[in-house]
Amino acid sequence: MIELNFKKTGGLIPAIAQDYATGEILMLAYMNQEAFNATLSSDKATYYSRSRQTLWVKGETSGNVQQVKEIRIDCDNDTVLLKVEQIGGAACHTGHRSCFYKKIENGSIREIGEPVFDPEEVYNK
Amino acid sequence: MIELNFKKTGGLIPAIAQDYATGEILMLAYMNQEAFNATLSSDKATYYSRSRQTLWVKGETSGNVQQVKEIRIDCDNDTVLLKVEQIGGAACHTGHRSCFYKKIENGSIREIGEPVFDPEEVYNK
Repeated sequence: MIELNFKKTGGLIPAIAQDYATGEILMLAYMNQEAFNATLSSDKATYYSRSRQTLWVKGETSGNVQQVKEIRIDCDNDTVLLKVEQIGGAACHTGHRSCFYKKIENGSIREIGEPVFDPEEVYNK
Repeated sequence: MIELNFKKTGGLIPAIAQDYATGEILMLAYMNQEAFNATLSSDKATYYSRSRQTLWVKGETSGNVQQVKEIRIDCDNDTVLLKVEQIGGAACHTGHRSCFYKKIENGSIREIGEPVFDPEEVYNK
């Protein structure tokens, strides 16, 4: 088994999802050992939802799953990097392609880019 | 002031450093409000060192500072993305360009790439 270091952050480590083709960073979520194992065995990005306190297969509600193409871990084994194919074109629950759609300019926040989907349509069916 | 959400993770939020030109993810570290403010005002990536429990201007020992070109934050204001120019060519204290030099292949870890510098020479002068 691959030993990650979950001790420093109370059982959860951050996992970055990056578009494997463009290099764009799509989102950051958290994993426990079970989420990491599920990601490895299913090749679908699986996180631990801190708000719902349960495993979370990304895209299970929206259909926007993340097909894992490559997994990297960092020097001290406490951060995961997933290179993924983002099915449906958007990773963010707001409908944006990437969660990082807020840019800091001159000390304030500017939203960039347009949502790919309407969250109300996707989540409130 | 830009309000980030430090509550969910006990006062620290993850900050991803990405090469602004190539899109390569270089490292992940943590920020408190003070580190974020210092990064904004100095344009040099400044983190909070969990091991040393103090502000940490990345590269202050090695010389490998990160010149900040752009700052993004995510949808729920609890992750920072820095697009940086990595001075000295390497972000990792091991001498690798990126901290994410361990790739998971067939259930085991393979190190990829060669260190750019020798950490013993850089840190033990």
